[in-house]
Amino acid sequence: MIRGTYCDKKQQTFHSITDLNELSQFKDNDDIFLWVDLQDPTKEELAKLGVEFQLHPLALEDATHEHQRPKIEEYDNFYFVVFYAAHLEAETGELDLREIDIFLNKHYLLTVHEKPIEDLKEIQLRWTRNVQQLHWGTGILLYSFLDTLVDDYFPVVDALVDQTEEIEDQLYIQRGQLRERDTALKLLTLRKKFLALRRVVTPQRDILNVLTNHDSSIFDERINIYFRDIYDHITRLADTVDLYRDQLSSTMDANLTVASNELNKVMRTMTAASIILMVDALIPGIYGMNFENIPELKWEYGYFAVLFLMLGLTIGLIVVFRRLRWF
Amino acid sequence: MIRGTYCDKKQQTFHSITDLNELSQFKDNDDIFLWVDLQDPTKEELAKLGVEFQLHPLALEDATHEHQRPKIEEYDNFYFVVFYAAHLEAETGELDLREIDIFLNKHYLLTVHEKPIEDLKEIQLRWTRNVQQLHWGTGILLYSFLDTLVDDYFPVVDALVDQTEEIEDQLYIQRGQLRERDTALKLLTLRKKFLALRRVVTPQRDILNVLTNHDSSIFDERINIYFRDIYDHITRLADTVDLYRDQLSSTMDANLTVASNELNKVMRTMTAASIILMVDALIPGIYGMNFENIPELKWEYGYFAVLFLMLGLTIGLIVVFRRLRWF
Amino acid sequence: MIRGTYCDKKQQTFHSITDLNELSQFKDNDDIFLWVDLQDPTKEELAKLGVEFQLHPLALEDATHEHQRPKIEEYDNFYFVVFYAAHLEAETGELDLREIDIFLNKHYLLTVHEKPIEDLKEIQLRWTRNVQQLHWGTGILLYSFLDTLVDDYFPVVDALVDQTEEIEDQLYIQRGQLRERDTALKLLTLRKKFLALRRVVTPQRDILNVLTNHDSSIFDERINIYFRDIYDHITRLADTVDLYRDQLSSTMDANLTVASNELNKVMRTMTAASIILMVDALIPGIYGMNFENIPELKWEYGYFAVLFLMLGLTIGLIVVFRRLRWF
Amino acid sequence: MIRGTYCDKKQQTFHSITDLNELSQFKDNDDIFLWVDLQDPTKEELAKLGVEFQLHPLALEDATHEHQRPKIEEYDNFYFVVFYAAHLEAETGELDLREIDIFLNKHYLLTVHEKPIEDLKEIQLRWTRNVQQLHWGTGILLYSFLDTLVDDYFPVVDALVDQTEEIEDQLYIQRGQLRERDTALKLLTLRKKFLALRRVVTPQRDILNVLTNHDSSIFDERINIYFRDIYDHITRLADTVDLYRDQLSSTMDANLTVASNELNKVMRTMTAASIILMVDALIPGIYGMNFENIPELKWEYGYFAVLFLMLGLTIGLIVVFRRLRWF
Amino acid sequence: MIRGTYCDKKQQTFHSITDLNELSQFKDNDDIFLWVDLQDPTKEELAKLGVEFQLHPLALEDATHEHQRPKIEEYDNFYFVVFYAAHLEAETGELDLREIDIFLNKHYLLTVHEKPIEDLKEIQLRWTRNVQQLHWGTGILLYSFLDTLVDDYFPVVDALVDQTEEIEDQLYIQRGQLRERDTALKLLTLRKKFLALRRVVTPQRDILNVLTNHDSSIFDERINIYFRDIYDHITRLADTVDLYRDQLSSTMDANLTVASNELNKVMRTMTAASIILMVDALIPGIYGMNFENIPELKWEYGYFAVLFLMLGLTIGLIVVFRRLRWF
Ligand SMILES: [Mg+2]
Ligand SMILES: [Mg+2]
Ligand SMILES: [Mg+2]
Ligand SMILES: [Mg+2]
Ligand SMILES: [Mg+2]
Ligand SMILES: [Mg+2]
Ligand SMILES: [Mg+2]
Ligand SMILES: [Mg+2]
Ligand SMILES: [Mg+2]
Ligand SMILES: [Mg+2]
Ligand SMILES: [Mg+2]
Ligand SMILES: [Mg+2]
Ligand SMILES: [Mg+2]
Ligand SMILES: [Mg+2]
Ligand SMILES: [Mg+2]
Ligand SMILES: [Mg+2]
Ligand SMILES: [Mg+2]
Ligand SMILES: [Mg+2]
Ligand SMILES: [Mg+2]
Ligand SMILES: [Mg+2]
Ligand SMILES: [Mg+2]
Ligand SMILES: [Mg+2]
Ligand SMILES: [Mg+2]
Ligand SMILES: [Mg+2]
Ligand SMILES: [Mg+2]
Ligand SMILES: [Mg+2]
Ligand SMILES: [Mg+2]
Ligand SMILES: [Mg+2]
Ligand SMILES: [Mg+2]
Ligand SMILES: [Mg+2]
Ligand SMILES: [Mg+2]
Repeated sequence: MIRGTYCDKKQQTFHSITDLNELSQFKDNDDIFLWVDLQDPTKEELAKLGVEFQLHPLALEDATHEHQRPKIEEYDNFYFVVFYAAHLEAETGELDLREIDIFLNKHYLLTVHEKPIEDLKEIQLRWTRNVQQLHWGTGILLYSFLDTLVDDYFPVVDALVDQTEEIEDQLYIQRGQLRERDTALKLLTLRKKFLALRRVVTPQRDILNVLTNHDSSIFDERINIYFRDIYDHITRLADTVDLYRDQLSSTMDANLTVASNELNKVMRTMTAASIILMVDALIPGIYGMNFENIPELKWEYGYFAVLFLMLGLTIGLIVVFRRLRWF
Repeated sequence: MIRGTYCDKKQQTFHSITDLNELSQFKDNDDIFLWVDLQDPTKEELAKLGVEFQLHPLALEDATHEHQRPKIEEYDNFYFVVFYAAHLEAETGELDLREIDIFLNKHYLLTVHEKPIEDLKEIQLRWTRNVQQLHWGTGILLYSFLDTLVDDYFPVVDALVDQTEEIEDQLYIQRGQLRERDTALKLLTLRKKFLALRRVVTPQRDILNVLTNHDSSIFDERINIYFRDIYDHITRLADTVDLYRDQLSSTMDANLTVASNELNKVMRTMTAASIILMVDALIPGIYGMNFENIPELKWEYGYFAVLFLMLGLTIGLIVVFRRLRWF
Repeated sequence: MIRGTYCDKKQQTFHSITDLNELSQFKDNDDIFLWVDLQDPTKEELAKLGVEFQLHPLALEDATHEHQRPKIEEYDNFYFVVFYAAHLEAETGELDLREIDIFLNKHYLLTVHEKPIEDLKEIQLRWTRNVQQLHWGTGILLYSFLDTLVDDYFPVVDALVDQTEEIEDQLYIQRGQLRERDTALKLLTLRKKFLALRRVVTPQRDILNVLTNHDSSIFDERINIYFRDIYDHITRLADTVDLYRDQLSSTMDANLTVASNELNKVMRTMTAASIILMVDALIPGIYGMNFENIPELKWEYGYFAVLFLMLGLTIGLIVVFRRLRWF
Repeated sequence: MIRGTYCDKKQQTFHSITDLNELSQFKDNDDIFLWVDLQDPTKEELAKLGVEFQLHPLALEDATHEHQRPKIEEYDNFYFVVFYAAHLEAETGELDLREIDIFLNKHYLLTVHEKPIEDLKEIQLRWTRNVQQLHWGTGILLYSFLDTLVDDYFPVVDALVDQTEEIEDQLYIQRGQLRERDTALKLLTLRKKFLALRRVVTPQRDILNVLTNHDSSIFDERINIYFRDIYDHITRLADTVDLYRDQLSSTMDANLTVASNELNKVMRTMTAASIILMVDALIPGIYGMNFENIPELKWEYGYFAVLFLMLGLTIGLIVVFRRLRWF
Repeated sequence: MIRGTYCDKKQQTFHSITDLNELSQFKDNDDIFLWVDLQDPTKEELAKLGVEFQLHPLALEDATHEHQRPKIEEYDNFYFVVFYAAHLEAETGELDLREIDIFLNKHYLLTVHEKPIEDLKEIQLRWTRNVQQLHWGTGILLYSFLDTLVDDYFPVVDALVDQTEEIEDQLYIQRGQLRERDTALKLLTLRKKFLALRRVVTPQRDILNVLTNHDSSIFDERINIYFRDIYDHITRLADTVDLYRDQLSSTMDANLTVASNELNKVMRTMTAASIILMVDALIPGIYGMNFENIPELKWEYGYFAVLFLMLGLTIGLIVVFRRLRWF
């Protein structure tokens, strides 16, 4: 699917393009900014794009294959940027990272991605609305693009943070539920998501660092502090991700101690109960012996005395174990 | 709430401002230093401030939203600093980090924050008292400001350190209390607070490093060693935080070993008690059998002999287990 | 085994060489690119190669001995590169890393290795096919060589990642299988393979970083972005390896908690079952006593009442322990 | 307490000073080196010192308050150094770190500390003895000072290392003593001392690095390799401290495994003993039944056969469990 | 013990020296290379050496005391290098690191060490054999020296690696042997040896890095790639040591999980056996009761029926527990 927009700088008007064949007339026109978005393009469409804009085969190859690292690469006639959009799938809670490949130049921004990116309309709106920044060139468009993508990371990270804190909160209140196994596995899953996030966030921070400090002929100078603003956001994300990655290890350790402590409690219960019941059983055992001469057996209240003795021992031992806090 | 003060450099007098509308007359006056503090400003007040002092929209946006990273950013006509005040809530013991956004220039210091900051009066006092340093410009005011904020971190860190050491001390004295679970969770909570502190302290150290080594046109040269003094304080804080973050992991490991050791003790008690009681129970079991020919049963003192045998076995086994230190 | 190919630049033709003695005529011929591959060469063959191309004894020594670190070294008249090919053995799943030593110069590429490398034919094909890049020199040949080797790491890493995730998935579903021991040992084995990979991947990334940023007289300028492409791939590999090396530690910790939790469950079962059975045993014990006066014994339905009592206690205790979730 | 010494460079004589009021005559005299040591000075004495030598208020403030970080700071007219003396208290084994603040200049060395430092006499002796190095200036005095302080760290670190190794040695020999709890807590205490040492040693290494590589107008060039010698010593200290900090974590892990293994042993003992005793108890239970027709009961040797059977089962089971190594 | 050799560059002959007094005639002779090795020298011999070659007292002091860090230090008239020889003691398996102090200059190499170093003869042989490299100066002698020492690390590291892998292999095959304690302690010992190795290998790599990149007036340029060759070897050593130091922590964790899993197994056995035996014991208990009316007791085959019932319950429960894999 192709969605193209070109902007006539002089007239400050925006027009849409729906066919790759229209592109050739705009690409070297200094009065025009062009944004072409290709969703799930065929190999032929990408090849056509490559020929039209003289894109280097290595960059085209990266745009064709999924799972590139976030990066910015300078080519003779354009910059190539790989960035990721992030969101959590509503149903499964799975972390969904969608790759976007960007070709960028004084005149155009070409974006290529497999799966639909929901922010695209908003980005377009932001671009067409800020007419007074049009003469800042394609940099302001790239800024709108990356800023919107990075803003979408915050709800994702916040949701993961919430899940982490919820699990930790349960650690404090659950008692005797044997949930340590589930807790450990949930922590493991969360840690993996933080690691996956870190893997795209850290190189994306590097991209924005490059954009912030780069003296480029294709961007207006005033755009640098805008990229610094995104850099700031993504650094905050990276800090959060690192903090929770670190904290989750300690939470796992605490969870193990909780499991160990629960076992201690169970074993104390068992020890106390066994001792009481075995002591109780000893007495009837004694009076079940068949010796001819056991004086107590003839005593009329012997049986009741034994029952009371057993009751007394039971209560006494319970008191002792209570004091030791074994119950 | 607005609290403004302007200083007439020539006359060395201080005057207060209570209305944002008064600001326009001072802002470009070289004979005046201006400090405006906005607590919980409305969007309109911030916008007015922005227009008055030509603050860049990106900086204003950061001042509007909470949870920025501590940072220092240079704009064309001002510096923008994000810093955090820290204190522990008296009742809950929660770590309270309050963001302050600072706009700084040769002529003015503008501070914006959501929640009340208690140090403000003290800072103002320090500023109006040191009249002889007035010609050092707004730098000395920024120094007073940051120095007071950083000094407030020490009681916070000391309290956390005290809590940590108290928990560790309990590890050494508690015995058989099954507190390992609580200990683990307390350690986890503390570790999280240290991590949260680290997250603001480390970038704030970077801010002060920048201020110490920066050749700025807006600060007097002599101010640099003052910022170095704060840098020194905050480095000390960062060291303490890192030391305890590291140490807390080991304390957690030690706590787990304590839990494991306690379990060993319980199991030894149980093993010893079970063996004694089962051995004891075996004998009455034997003499409870209904064989026609069990010679001992006819012996007049058989019953008493058995009781003594049981007592003897019990004492003997207790001695053995005592020697093995199983009791 | 020797497999040589020389390319006549002017005529754009390729010819094969099968004897080391033919080499002397090509080595200083500016019109010729030479690629000689020696598999499992004798010491004499290597010495001959050394004399023919004036290879430094230290480089020759490294080519003779196995287990060099991946590296690139500049000598007066050539570059020396050590690189590794990777694959997993189909049957045992063992990680197989095969060292390749490369001597490189404007005129020639000499590759030396002990064991067969399957990619060689494909590499040769890529070289002889891209005739239009011939004037880029031996750099394009080195590129083809390294690119093919690095591409082969992806299926290896993917297989290890799959194995890791499979083990993790089992953690979530296995119950009461006592597989924690096997899981721990499998995780240990996998972690070792990731470490072994990391040990070659990290220095190989350094090699490609050198090649990407190096201003070399022997490579055409345009080749640098090709090396950058391989650098990008190998960085992705290094990221994956590091992520799983980190994650595997947490998986091990989670596995330990699973083991601990399973133990808790077993002990709860045991405690509950012991208490029920001991309580049940106490009652027949009581009515097995030989007191002359035990009124119940004479009651006609005493025996059945006792059986019901035991049944009732059993059911009651089961209900209690169910509620406590000890069963 | 004040202890001052001044050295007349020309006459190569040393004279002592006992009153702060004498200082004014020496401070700007180029023919004199001055060393003033203040132990536990009053605020007034420090203020007097500050006025006399024009010490910056920030440095004076650091000298007034305890617990500064080790550091070196350059002021206009002097260097300010914070360093720590270390020793272990003989009775409690507590690590005692004593802060020393040093003001340094071409003409003088001023040392300020709260608690007595035992090395001072030795340092003075070293200084007054090496008359031929007098013209090297105050640098040789600073060298003597720091070298003596650093040399005192070695017995401290050696003692901690000895304690660590002693605990580890006990791990190998102790058996069934349930000392894992104590071991864990001792390791924790030691680790904390290593961390505390590290916290002063690492920044002190930085101080000596600065002194080694600094081109200072106040030191003779030849002194640099002397500071390098101390740098070398303190790097060795830092290496040792880091090695043991790392190793102690593993020792803790090993200690936990020892605890776990001990538990395994106890449980095996318990399992084996329980099975033997319960099997033994089953047989008398059977012959305690009241069935009218139990043929064995009438056999004359039935009772003795049962006793032999029980003995046989006991021995047989013991043999089995021995073979399984459960005893 | 002194062992000296001097080489007459012009005549390319080697002569031995056996007395320190002979040295004065050679030390400033440009036609001569001198190598003096002092084993376990007296203080007087070292002092004499110091006077003869004008060695700086700080370097002499380092040569006098043991346990220096590996380092290279430049003095006015010579380089001072501290290096370690490594081997494993054949009997105890202890890691033996022997310090060698080297004074180096255009004209001489002086080596000082406490304990005998076995490689010395081989080093001398390598030097006297390569006559054609004599005009490269003392650098080629230093190269021979360090190369031989570093080559000796490989069998040491290989032996430690073998021991590590052997322990890991046993983890996979041992079952029910309760060897986790011994395994943990062996892993701890090995980890300590790797740490000790790392402590000398890492700074020695720095020494060789300095030698590789140093433009020195005393070495011929061509020697640099020789030092790079040693640098390469020692980097490989450092990589191996780091890999196993990392891996050993995971092996320890796996070992703990094995211990935990073994405990699970024991407890399952115990739980299953207890339940079976207690259930079995319940039935004879019931028929041991003295109720007057227990119909079964009068049944002729009651006793046998009960025995069959017990056998049936036993078999049934064994089948159930087998299915649950508790046996
Ligand atoms: Mg792509
Ligand atoms: Mg993806
Ligand atoms: Mg944003
Ligand atoms: Mg924004
Ligand atoms: Mg912002
Ligand atoms: Mg941990
Ligand atoms: Mg804000
Ligand atoms: Mg906040
Ligand atoms: Mg302060
Ligand atoms: Mg202060
Ligand atoms: Mg200070
Ligand atoms: Mg740990
Ligand atoms: Mg090789
Ligand atoms: Mg290999
Ligand atoms: Mg590739
Ligand atoms: Mg490719
Ligand atoms: Mg690519
Ligand atoms: Mg771990
Ligand atoms: Mg862990
Ligand atoms: Mg002080
Ligand atoms: Mg202190
Ligand atoms: Mg010293
Ligand atoms: Mg010394
Ligand atoms: Mg020294
Ligand atoms: Mg640990
Ligand atoms: Mg020495
Ligand atoms: Mg040594
Ligand atoms: Mg070698
Ligand atoms: Mg060699
Ligand atoms: Mg080599
Ligand atoms: Mg560990």
